Amino acid sequence: MNQVVGFIGLGNMGLPMAGHLAEAGVRVRVWNRSRAKADSLITRGAQWVPQLEGVAEAGAIVITMLSNDQAVKQLAGTESNLASRLAPGGIHLSMSTISPSTSRELAKHYEGLGASHVAAPVFGRPEAAAARKLWICISGPKAAKERVQPVLKILGQGIFDFGEDPGGANVVKLAGNFLIASAMEAMAEAFALAQKNGIDRSAVADLFGQTLFACPIYQNYGKAVAQERYTPAGFKLSLGLKDVDLVLQSAAASRMPMPLASLLHDRFMTGMAKGREEMDWSALALGVSEDAGLK
Amino acid sequence: MNQVVGFIGLGNMGLPMAGHLAEAGVRVRVWNRSRAKADSLITRGAQWVPQLEGVAEAGAIVITMLSNDQAVKQLAGTESNLASRLAPGGIHLSMSTISPSTSRELAKHYEGLGASHVAAPVFGRPEAAAARKLWICISGPKAAKERVQPVLKILGQGIFDFGEDPGGANVVKLAGNFLIASAMEAMAEAFALAQKNGIDRSAVADLFGQTLFACPIYQNYGKAVAQERYTPAGFKLSLGLKDVDLVLQSAAASRMPMPLASLLHDRFMTGMAKGREEMDWSALALGVSEDAGLK
Amino acid sequence: MNQVVGFIGLGNMGLPMAGHLAEAGVRVRVWNRSRAKADSLITRGAQWVPQLEGVAEAGAIVITMLSNDQAVKQLAGTESNLASRLAPGGIHLSMSTISPSTSRELAKHYEGLGASHVAAPVFGRPEAAAARKLWICISGPKAAKERVQPVLKILGQGIFDFGEDPGGANVVKLAGNFLIASAMEAMAEAFALAQKNGIDRSAVADLFGQTLFACPIYQNYGKAVAQERYTPAGFKLSLGLKDVDLVLQSAAASRMPMPLASLLHDRFMTGMAKGREEMDWSALALGVSEDAGLK
Amino acid sequence: MNQVVGFIGLGNMGLPMAGHLAEAGVRVRVWNRSRAKADSLITRGAQWVPQLEGVAEAGAIVITMLSNDQAVKQLAGTESNLASRLAPGGIHLSMSTISPSTSRELAKHYEGLGASHVAAPVFGRPEAAAARKLWICISGPKAAKERVQPVLKILGQGIFDFGEDPGGANVVKLAGNFLIASAMEAMAEAFALAQKNGIDRSAVADLFGQTLFACPIYQNYGKAVAQERYTPAGFKLSLGLKDVDLVLQSAAASRMPMPLASLLHDRFMTGMAKGREEMDWSALALGVSEDAGLK
Repeated sequence: MNQVVGFIGLGNMGLPMAGHLAEAGVRVRVWNRSRAKADSLITRGAQWVPQLEGVAEAGAIVITMLSNDQAVKQLAGTESNLASRLAPGGIHLSMSTISPSTSRELAKHYEGLGASHVAAPVFGRPEAAAARKLWICISGPKAAKERVQPVLKILGQGIFDFGEDPGGANVVKLAGNFLIASAMEAMAEAFALAQKNGIDRSAVADLFGQTLFACPIYQNYGKAVAQERYTPAGFKLSLGLKDVDLVLQSAAASRMPMPLASLLHDRFMTGMAKGREEMDWSALALGVSEDAGLK
Repeated sequence: MNQVVGFIGLGNMGLPMAGHLAEAGVRVRVWNRSRAKADSLITRGAQWVPQLEGVAEAGAIVITMLSNDQAVKQLAGTESNLASRLAPGGIHLSMSTISPSTSRELAKHYEGLGASHVAAPVFGRPEAAAARKLWICISGPKAAKERVQPVLKILGQGIFDFGEDPGGANVVKLAGNFLIASAMEAMAEAFALAQKNGIDRSAVADLFGQTLFACPIYQNYGKAVAQERYTPAGFKLSLGLKDVDLVLQSAAASRMPMPLASLLHDRFMTGMAKGREEMDWSALALGVSEDAGLK
Repeated sequence: MNQVVGFIGLGNMGLPMAGHLAEAGVRVRVWNRSRAKADSLITRGAQWVPQLEGVAEAGAIVITMLSNDQAVKQLAGTESNLASRLAPGGIHLSMSTISPSTSRELAKHYEGLGASHVAAPVFGRPEAAAARKLWICISGPKAAKERVQPVLKILGQGIFDFGEDPGGANVVKLAGNFLIASAMEAMAEAFALAQKNGIDRSAVADLFGQTLFACPIYQNYGKAVAQERYTPAGFKLSLGLKDVDLVLQSAAASRMPMPLASLLHDRFMTGMAKGREEMDWSALALGVSEDAGLK
Repeated sequence: MNQVVGFIGLGNMGLPMAGHLAEAGVRVRVWNRSRAKADSLITRGAQWVPQLEGVAEAGAIVITMLSNDQAVKQLAGTESNLASRLAPGGIHLSMSTISPSTSRELAKHYEGLGASHVAAPVFGRPEAAAARKLWICISGPKAAKERVQPVLKILGQGIFDFGEDPGGANVVKLAGNFLIASAMEAMAEAFALAQKNGIDRSAVADLFGQTLFACPIYQNYGKAVAQERYTPAGFKLSLGLKDVDLVLQSAAASRMPMPLASLLHDRFMTGMAKGREEMDWSALALGVSEDAGLK
């Protein structure tokens, strides 16, 4: 593929993603705060650019894979000149988990300068990124979504389109993280009830993971919650809180309550109060066990 | 199998179960409030007994598959003479969804009279009962659990043992129904958020049913909640409330809070307040949509 | 007053109440599980009766002041012969905090036997009972309510009539305890927020007790929660849970959710899980502080 | 009093407050978006200044009484030159309901430029402002707090000091609004339970307003919630939501959950979803009644 793809954000998700692009023959240009992170990519054919704006040129695609709204706004929003360098015809492919409202803001900014913005947040942990098994949700202008398809196909095992509203895919991504956290809370309460009745937590997790809930989320998080193994963190509790708060903000912007999201917010906040921000987000289950007098 | 198995409770679960036993050559004796229900079973070799106590004899197994704790207590507890007719050596195989405390009471009663009690509640709707695809949880005395294995294997696709405490299997069964209701609440909130953002509910349900939550509960209830089809009821909202209340009672007996179960209780109670007791329990999602101003 | 008034239940509420009646010249007959409790009353003119039924005679009034529904049902319900001894024309004056449904059951029982039942639960701690400062809610048949007025005026500083439904006064009493517990939860959260910001809990309690919430509940419980003094118990946490559960049962019987009552149930249950049943019910605030990482 | 006091914000709170200052002989300088609002003040001796900065001079006091954090930041924060005009020795007296974090930011800004910032949010509706019956919470540097005392004494009936942290008084103000909203939710649930049992809502409100909760909040809001009179708004539901969200933000910044505040957020959000933003904030009770099937 002769496509130029700039890549900003070489964290534990972005690094394997950029690597796959480079290996697939895409002309990848990378920029990162610390250059050291890019070494393995350069070996595989990626080009290092010393200045952020160097990742972009007219008509190119630039992917951002960053940790939060603020980072994306700063590096790819009005504080950067990315949009004008991509014009005419370039595309900002925003793959971070950010709020729908930030996505809508960015879309306006890019359109106003003659470029496009496509939201394409992903489901999957770093292992999935490494295995090209991400699930990708997209939303944005039709033509731009078509142009990014070949790039996304290199990264994921499935692409789901949620329309033209640039915030659509972000809503769905947040909804998914909300469903996962909800499942963890439900399992934490169910397993604590079992434990208080003398039943082995793992036996219960196994039953449900093999039957009614024979799917990855219940199997993997079920094991973590049953065995109470919360370190090392696959996804930090502080980030779980951040995402649940983005859910609540989106719900507020949409004028609706989400009482289960409120409960999750409270649970994560207890985790923060007790100094668990670096544990895995499944450590919300510790609060359940403590309330049950099990700790 | 030359085993005598009495069967009490020919509802939409019990009827297909008793039928499979009869077809498998078990000597099934059935009693039911209305005899008409038993006709199809008699054709298949089951024996009708005109008096409840006729289902039991020394050393036999008697299965109860009834709608609630009260019915089981009345027909198989101290108000009946089932236990003494099963003695010595008979087994009460209690397959209804009842509370752990009722199960523990029944176990004492049976033991005291020289018989045994095994709890064996099941997961699965009537279709699963008809297809012999039930998942069965058991708990109780070891020897008795071994003796009922051949009978249970006729009825289900998997048997999970939760120890000797007669209430153990009931705790797990309730925990399972709690997990299902929790998943429905989570999906209802997530889909309402999507809808408020102009995204098709079914598209979101499909995404999650194919990826993170590729398991029957999310696929089937996801479809119902996405399409808002709450009649006819597969499992009535009033029964959903009953089960969540059994969960909360068990949690109270175990001295622990279950805030997500409390939230579900409140949600089902709103459904009751609005006259939805005959709808499917997934109709709890209507309350979510109303709170969001979508109705 | 020449009225015969039987009195059942000489706990820390009943004892001062019966004393006031005796001193006012009412012909008080007392029965209690242990006679020792009655000694001080006998000195003041009360008559000890060795058998429970001795407290009643045709046309008399019998007051019950007991710890829960079960005790009232047992000593004054169908398991006793109190109703028939009061007939014709006697009145059961039920002053305990019990459920509306128990009250309705008792009313039917008494009416069926030619006697009457009046619910008259009270607000006030033992100090208020001793000072004749109780607030009394009543409900039941008009004529009976009029007949008990002189007796109630000896005990309280105000009588509030809630109609003919025998359960009415009980609903209001439970609603009151719910309001108190809600105020405690609100103060506990508010004071913890202040404390986390370096502000003295008592300074906040003083402000509100002197201004917006210048009323006994906020002043007294405000002080307890601010100073975190939870022993000795004025009203045990286990009884607080009992009352909130009666609230939830009444709400369920009325088909409505009460999410704040559910939150209180969960909070008290955490207290039970941590072995705080003998502390004052204001110790629900400990759970708030723990979740905030303050303990 | 020869003190110069600038006044920014002539809404339904600020207008009567500025009027009292003018009448007390303070040299009031007012600025407002629309001059018409100031006419009645000019009659009473206040001086109109055509430019915002005209309200301030070295050593003066400037009061802001505005609707939200953003307005205060814009008119009295880094976007204005108020701080430098007050230096040296002037004081910004911030009486709006804003977040502790905004207050802390402003304090830094003023200190950095040689002026002071005192937070002095108030409790009381416009009637209380008109009657000089406000309750005032203050926090900030000692000397500055002393200097503003004579001014505050003209406006309120009591001043409560919460220390040197500039955010302290704001935390307490938010805590107070949280207590009020909590009391409304509690009453709404209690009155709905009464109504479902055939009891008059107002009779219950009267009982509690005269006894356990004989204080203004329960008496006034109790009447509103009992009679279900939610227009005209004394304090809009949208502002109630704003304040509860400030509470939740402060709790988050303090790392603690406030589940009752979360419940209130959800309840107000349902009100927003149903188009009730212009109703009084006590209209949160409508959601309670709807969930109970009463509407």
